[in-house]
This record gives sequence, C-alpha cells and structure tokens, in this order.
Amino acid sequence: MNWIEVFGHVGAFMSAVTFMPQVYKVWKTKSVNDLSLTMILIVFLSTIIWLVYAVALMLWPVIIANSIVCFLSILLIYFKFAYEKK
Amino acid sequence: MNWIEVFGHVGAFMSAVTFMPQVYKVWKTKSVNDLSLTMILIVFLSTIIWLVYAVALMLWPVIIANSIVCFLSILLIYFKFAYEKK
Repeated sequence: MNWIEVFGHVGAFMSAVTFMPQVYKVWKTKSVNDLSLTMILIVFLSTIIWLVYAVALMLWPVIIANSIVCFLSILLIYFKFAYEKK
Repeated sequence: MNWIEVFGHVGAFMSAVTFMPQVYKVWKTKSVNDLSLTMILIVFLSTIIWLVYAVALMLWPVIIANSIVCFLSILLIYFKFAYEKK
C-alpha cells in the first residue's frame, strides 16, 4: 500500500466515524434543537447515492463507510423527531 | 457519462452541500450548544486528508467537494466558539 492509498483509507475511516460523537452527544443530552434536519436528510440521501455507486463498482471501503454513516443518520433522524422541543 | 458516473457526481455534490443548511441554521439562531465540536473537528481533519489524497490523484470533483466542506467546517468551528453558551 503506498502513501496515497493510506490517505484514502484514513479519509474513509474518518468519514465513517464523523457522526459518532454527534449521536453520542444527542443520546447523552436528549437535546437536538440546534441540529439542522435538512443536513441530516442530505447526509442520509447522499449515503444511499454513494451506496448505489459503490455497490456498482464494488468499492468495499466506500460501501462500509457509507453503511455506517447511513445507519447513524437514521438514528439522528429518529432523535430529531423524538427529542425536538417546541 | 454512464449512470454510475452520474451517481458519483450527484453523491459528490450532495456531500459538498451537506453542511450548508447547518451553517445557515447556526447563522440564523446563533445557537450551537447541541452541536458536537468533536464531529466538526473530525469533518475538518477528514477534508484535509481527502484533499491530500485527491490532489495527489488529481480527482477534481473530490478536490472541489472537500474544499467547500473544509471552508464550511472552519465556519462551524468559529461559530461553535463564538456562540457557545456556558
């Protein structure tokens, strides 16, 4: 593996874990009012697009990273509706 | 352009605009307490990693998308420190 591939794998790993601290924070605080639902929906839709693309090309790191982000975005959508204060 | 490439471009576009609604929401509400700083820092660092990777391979859609997200993550870091309520 050359250094460019290493950067690609590190980037894919970091993209996969991006929303973990946000899910953890919401789970602890039960507070979601400052989160943009539009952002979360774009994240969810973009993971679906990336999954179609990556499955077609059998890009396993992209498939794995986007599956994780897709799952986390579904959690955030659920939290957004469950914990939003009027 | 075949349909797989179209999905790749749509995915890159959606990833680039992901944080725009969040930046807009924070700019309107001046409220950032529910946002995870760890998430924003991971986003910022991952765009730097992806930029090194994409410049090395001259992947223009990845370079453009990550430049936009990098700029938006710097804005969110600034907002997080400027508007955080103790």
